[in-house]
Amino acid sequence: MKINEQRLTFIGCESSYEDSKIAIFGAPYDGTSSFRAGSRFAPSVMRNESIGIETYSPYLDKDLADINVFDGGDLELSFGNPEKPLLQIEEYANQILDDKKIPLMIGGEHLVTLGAFKAAQNHYPDICLVHFDAHTDLREHYLGETLSHASVIKRIWNIIGDGRIFQYGIRSGEKEEFVWAKEHTRLNKFNFDTLENDLATISDRPIYLTIDLDVLDPSEMSGTGTPEAGGVRFTELIKAVSKVAKLNIVACDINELSPEYDKSGSSTALACKLLRELLLQL
Amino acid sequence: MKINEQRLTFIGCESSYEDSKIAIFGAPYDGTSSFRAGSRFAPSVMRNESIGIETYSPYLDKDLADINVFDGGDLELSFGNPEKPLLQIEEYANQILDDKKIPLMIGGEHLVTLGAFKAAQNHYPDICLVHFDAHTDLREHYLGETLSHASVIKRIWNIIGDGRIFQYGIRSGEKEEFVWAKEHTRLNKFNFDTLENDLATISDRPIYLTIDLDVLDPSEMSGTGTPEAGGVRFTELIKAVSKVAKLNIVACDINELSPEYDKSGSSTALACKLLRELLLQL
Amino acid sequence: MKINEQRLTFIGCESSYEDSKIAIFGAPYDGTSSFRAGSRFAPSVMRNESIGIETYSPYLDKDLADINVFDGGDLELSFGNPEKPLLQIEEYANQILDDKKIPLMIGGEHLVTLGAFKAAQNHYPDICLVHFDAHTDLREHYLGETLSHASVIKRIWNIIGDGRIFQYGIRSGEKEEFVWAKEHTRLNKFNFDTLENDLATISDRPIYLTIDLDVLDPSEMSGTGTPEAGGVRFTELIKAVSKVAKLNIVACDINELSPEYDKSGSSTALACKLLRELLLQL
Amino acid sequence: MKINEQRLTFIGCESSYEDSKIAIFGAPYDGTSSFRAGSRFAPSVMRNESIGIETYSPYLDKDLADINVFDGGDLELSFGNPEKPLLQIEEYANQILDDKKIPLMIGGEHLVTLGAFKAAQNHYPDICLVHFDAHTDLREHYLGETLSHASVIKRIWNIIGDGRIFQYGIRSGEKEEFVWAKEHTRLNKFNFDTLENDLATISDRPIYLTIDLDVLDPSEMSGTGTPEAGGVRFTELIKAVSKVAKLNIVACDINELSPEYDKSGSSTALACKLLRELLLQL
Amino acid sequence: MKINEQRLTFIGCESSYEDSKIAIFGAPYDGTSSFRAGSRFAPSVMRNESIGIETYSPYLDKDLADINVFDGGDLELSFGNPEKPLLQIEEYANQILDDKKIPLMIGGEHLVTLGAFKAAQNHYPDICLVHFDAHTDLREHYLGETLSHASVIKRIWNIIGDGRIFQYGIRSGEKEEFVWAKEHTRLNKFNFDTLENDLATISDRPIYLTIDLDVLDPSEMSGTGTPEAGGVRFTELIKAVSKVAKLNIVACDINELSPEYDKSGSSTALACKLLRELLLQL
Amino acid sequence: MKINEQRLTFIGCESSYEDSKIAIFGAPYDGTSSFRAGSRFAPSVMRNESIGIETYSPYLDKDLADINVFDGGDLELSFGNPEKPLLQIEEYANQILDDKKIPLMIGGEHLVTLGAFKAAQNHYPDICLVHFDAHTDLREHYLGETLSHASVIKRIWNIIGDGRIFQYGIRSGEKEEFVWAKEHTRLNKFNFDTLENDLATISDRPIYLTIDLDVLDPSEMSGTGTPEAGGVRFTELIKAVSKVAKLNIVACDINELSPEYDKSGSSTALACKLLRELLLQL
Repeated sequence: MKINEQRLTFIGCESSYEDSKIAIFGAPYDGTSSFRAGSRFAPSVMRNESIGIETYSPYLDKDLADINVFDGGDLELSFGNPEKPLLQIEEYANQILDDKKIPLMIGGEHLVTLGAFKAAQNHYPDICLVHFDAHTDLREHYLGETLSHASVIKRIWNIIGDGRIFQYGIRSGEKEEFVWAKEHTRLNKFNFDTLENDLATISDRPIYLTIDLDVLDPSEMSGTGTPEAGGVRFTELIKAVSKVAKLNIVACDINELSPEYDKSGSSTALACKLLRELLLQL
Repeated sequence: MKINEQRLTFIGCESSYEDSKIAIFGAPYDGTSSFRAGSRFAPSVMRNESIGIETYSPYLDKDLADINVFDGGDLELSFGNPEKPLLQIEEYANQILDDKKIPLMIGGEHLVTLGAFKAAQNHYPDICLVHFDAHTDLREHYLGETLSHASVIKRIWNIIGDGRIFQYGIRSGEKEEFVWAKEHTRLNKFNFDTLENDLATISDRPIYLTIDLDVLDPSEMSGTGTPEAGGVRFTELIKAVSKVAKLNIVACDINELSPEYDKSGSSTALACKLLRELLLQL
Repeated sequence: MKINEQRLTFIGCESSYEDSKIAIFGAPYDGTSSFRAGSRFAPSVMRNESIGIETYSPYLDKDLADINVFDGGDLELSFGNPEKPLLQIEEYANQILDDKKIPLMIGGEHLVTLGAFKAAQNHYPDICLVHFDAHTDLREHYLGETLSHASVIKRIWNIIGDGRIFQYGIRSGEKEEFVWAKEHTRLNKFNFDTLENDLATISDRPIYLTIDLDVLDPSEMSGTGTPEAGGVRFTELIKAVSKVAKLNIVACDINELSPEYDKSGSSTALACKLLRELLLQL
Repeated sequence: MKINEQRLTFIGCESSYEDSKIAIFGAPYDGTSSFRAGSRFAPSVMRNESIGIETYSPYLDKDLADINVFDGGDLELSFGNPEKPLLQIEEYANQILDDKKIPLMIGGEHLVTLGAFKAAQNHYPDICLVHFDAHTDLREHYLGETLSHASVIKRIWNIIGDGRIFQYGIRSGEKEEFVWAKEHTRLNKFNFDTLENDLATISDRPIYLTIDLDVLDPSEMSGTGTPEAGGVRFTELIKAVSKVAKLNIVACDINELSPEYDKSGSSTALACKLLRELLLQL
Repeated sequence: MKINEQRLTFIGCESSYEDSKIAIFGAPYDGTSSFRAGSRFAPSVMRNESIGIETYSPYLDKDLADINVFDGGDLELSFGNPEKPLLQIEEYANQILDDKKIPLMIGGEHLVTLGAFKAAQNHYPDICLVHFDAHTDLREHYLGETLSHASVIKRIWNIIGDGRIFQYGIRSGEKEEFVWAKEHTRLNKFNFDTLENDLATISDRPIYLTIDLDVLDPSEMSGTGTPEAGGVRFTELIKAVSKVAKLNIVACDINELSPEYDKSGSSTALACKLLRELLLQL
Repeated sequence: MKINEQRLTFIGCESSYEDSKIAIFGAPYDGTSSFRAGSRFAPSVMRNESIGIETYSPYLDKDLADINVFDGGDLELSFGNPEKPLLQIEEYANQILDDKKIPLMIGGEHLVTLGAFKAAQNHYPDICLVHFDAHTDLREHYLGETLSHASVIKRIWNIIGDGRIFQYGIRSGEKEEFVWAKEHTRLNKFNFDTLENDLATISDRPIYLTIDLDVLDPSEMSGTGTPEAGGVRFTELIKAVSKVAKLNIVACDINELSPEYDKSGSSTALACKLLRELLLQL
């Protein structure tokens, strides 16, 4: 009998960095969550709970065992001031992109997207953002801060400007955000109805896909900081992901799982399954 | 810097009593809950958690910031014997109605409706009741008591008689209640299918709208004392509310949220959102 | 006043064994649950919580008060090695079947089905299995063990062979299990689409119906060990049960409720209601 | 194999009523609990969880297997108005006392003591009350009601008057209650320091012992409606019980366990153990 | 009947600012909590739950009803970067001190103490800090940040230097912190043994008292982010507070209650009681 | 920036196997837990939560950073039948002992001790067992099984016989177990009173130390399957461990943490701290 060291990875993602086309990492930061925090625990809990799902997808008839994915664990991020964590995330994602791999980040709160998006935009200047969320995240500032989960898409707009942000499932925000969005982003309320047509207009562009899990109905995803009734279903979401995955996704993330708020574990299990479906299509 | 007193109100309901057309109040009584209590905490928890939702409704493109609503906090009710709490509720609602405002009560168990309904019936003798619920609430008595959450609609029938009670979403009760209802109320099982047609027959009548949140499917509203599988969806419910709101609602209530039973907080968040949608249409 | 002994039974199942056509019993074993246990508590919690539902079904317009059902309580099973508990279950079910009654077992993990199925197969050699589940349960062995919740349907296949197992709602398993199923069972992924046609082919055969509650979507049934997003709804499930109940069900079970994982109690309440609907149709 | 009916009793209390000297019953009423309810579930949960303890006491070197105790289950009490439940309790306890047995009631909130005490006082007019509690329970009325958990000892004083009530562990109440107690009861704050001496003065009197479990420190008994820091320890409590048990206890109760508030189950387990120790000394 | 606005205050603290000698305010910030957050909810939850305790202290034979305390509610603080919240806290405390009142802050994480301490030090330059905690909080920086809950006492030392910081109950920290403390603070491990003697040396100095609730044993205070076994008892803590209160406390705080981590509510109840005892002695 | 693989180990236990004198491993088996399971999650949860404690012990003035400990992660054990898991444990511990290291196993339920003890007894035939527990664990069989958490010490006695088993803190068991223990083991009820004298008699013998965490009072350790009121305190336990650690401990284990039953995490934190204290003394 041999005594070995053990790694902890998301199920089916035990490949080496060198062999992998996709590199997962966790960004356990939730420092600007104003209402209910806890998304910092998401990547770690997802790794632990992923043993409850299978590596095989009966939706896609594909298996994680047949692809190579590296899981680099969680970044060690400071709390409080978000500037340093965002830089750490950007630097880490930059390295993955330098190595011609796809970074797949697991948040943390939605602000972490800003760090990874900057890295992706460095490498793919004409990148577009596809954004699934219940919230617009378009505030200029929130409680006096410009770096906030509620402002993250506005900060990305500051970088890439009009016409390159596509938002779906949105059902919460200030009136001003919805008014502003009419001029500056493509915002589809409540569902994915226009997704397919919208994607046709950017089919040749590199895509950053960011999924705020609260786009889902709270009946299926109660483990999130700001549950918003009237959301989409898991089966709708994985269909929407499939459509985006036909394009050139160069970086992506899944964020805002707060495992503590769903003691049943079914929110975490769903997030794991969504991650599997996403990995199998990248 | 000025040190001020602070009030706690439902989000967007900070107007003065004098300026407001609608007056919210909490009726934190759950003394006859036979199975699982806890709805006494609903109005207080809703106020605290309402900061998690926005004042703007993307469904209606309206904002609580644009209307005046007063939140009077919770009545201080005794427990045990329900007679005194019901009188306190009736007296408080009477005052609001005397002042030509709409009382919007947040329960508490469903029995509290009896107090507010009496006040409304005092002011509008030809009032009709529109009742959304999983349960008939038509028992003559329950465990030997006539004043019970399970008897509240029967008690209202004792006041207004046949043909003026309209029930929707009902999917639980004793056989005798369903049989009795055929003669005395308009009861639509499981959903809102007949709502629109039914309302057409009472379009000129003052309406009391009572919403027992367990009319919703427990997947969306697990935070309630008696969850009943097979319920309606949030999006169906707000559509139904819209239909009723086109009529002349003179008083209304939302009841039977038991926040402790949904630790995720999504039931409370839904209730807050429903309250917002209701307020914006009154 | 008379001081009496009190029995604890599922609501409406207070009849004597002699008078009853159906005999309920609990099989509180979850010893091979690899991921999250707790289904051992299901039958006991269901009895306690069943007082929260009514005996009357508005779906069927029937009442448990009008039929005779015996509830024998829980078997006292050892833990660890599953061989002895499976024998105890088989022996108990055999007795019920000897007495020309229908055993209705409440698990416990899915492995308990093996014990009761053997008893049924003893009495009805040409029996077929109708299986509602999220998982195939077709592994040859699991973590080195052949007696496992993940292998229970494979073990039953070992007894009755090809063409007699019908599986619905399946959405999780190893690739090998799905491949194997194509040759040996009738497996319908995700839903009940082929159920009606399939049943037509076995309408003259005795049926064992086994319902793993995780066939339901976790939004409605989060209280289970391995929640799998993308499941069926309660209303779909009771319709499917109705179709099977038109055939000759000679034994059946409901399993894999883990009440601890749904603190709201709505999973347990749903399971109770499903049991009522099943009882009223047997 | 024989299919039998099953009773649910507290562990080791399976004797028949006729054979037993002690008769346990549950009084699941918590209708006047003003702050946090849930003690209605205590007797039922204690029966279910009692299988986790042993029938043998290493403290006393005695075993429940060697004595005869009857467990009559829970009374079916209405909610809301407390008058009827109190009468039901009194009538039930009267019957037990008529039959020359000791009633041991498991609450429920503390108000239930009033019903059982009245029965005991009917049979033993010179009875004294020994009261272990964190609270004085001496309010004249509470939120306008005279029948309240906060007034129960005052109501008993209304019956038996000065000098016959002995209170221990008290550490919460209104100033007026403590002032009043100086004239009318024997109140020992915080602990049991004077218990032994006090008991010496009533060693020839029949005793009603009522134990409000919140007398314990919340670190050991967090499952109660109004946890009060600075309480006594389990080992101190069972020693105090031993001292009282040397006198002539003719009736007793344990109340105010709210199992839902201690998800760990250790409060319930402690209550079961205390019940065992009490039974073995009666 | 008069319809009034309602305030929410800690029980017994309904006096006007002008009339009060003490001004309570909440500082709901937990942005640098690295392990488990949630202390942001403490002041709000304490206000809601304080109705469960009495205003009268049987320990002190004093009543909140007899003193004047103002409760200004919670500051509205941003999250993420702690600099702005600390300034808001400092400014608010400054105003209270300008008005010759004692600020009593309820955290939030321990870092909030820095803001209030600065205000106190502005007004009382020779101020000393008395610090009850399980942790040294003496790190130079934590995860790269100097403004952190783990560094707060070190930051205060940066302001007031050697010999003015007195630490009690400490039982966790890095080796370097304990070594450093030997030279620069008065640190008493595990308990309050040297408190009385130490206080004698600063009896003429203004005192800032900061109580990190995790100084208590987790058996009594499990609702905190970093529970450390081996702590002090509530009764020991209130005795220690009494000793400090004999000196000239000019500002104080209670922090690090994380109510979500103690679902039983007993941690919150204890914190409320401690606040009452502190208020009655100031 | 370098992208590295990450290991998950208990805090401060990152040394290689070769460099380490002590090898930790998890034995996540709880298959015979009859009442409440969940200890299977203990080693994994402890690794995740150990970041909340420090590597430095102020009790011992020692630091994990100064010693070498290897953490091999969790064994992958099957469920159900305990024979195979026990063999896996024995084989793994044998290898560690062959390599002249001390195995420190984290359970799992107490039965896992049997596997590791056998390995230790293979290497040290004159080994003695020091056993801290609330329960005797001396049943000949339990629910018909001889391999059970309730029989594990009896099974060890079957191997080493009279006079070599020393039990402390015991306060629960069947009468027969206590009677039997008088002849065959050294059993000290409730506390550690005789520990020091007893150890003096075996000071030259190799020791296996097994700590069932339920020896602690449930106020400090509610996260366990069978909480027993009246237990020892953490500070008493670490003193007792210190006494044993002065002898020649050749193997040891900590078991029966059920993290799910203490949502506050303080039980897990205590277990981590106990592990640290144990490691620093081996």
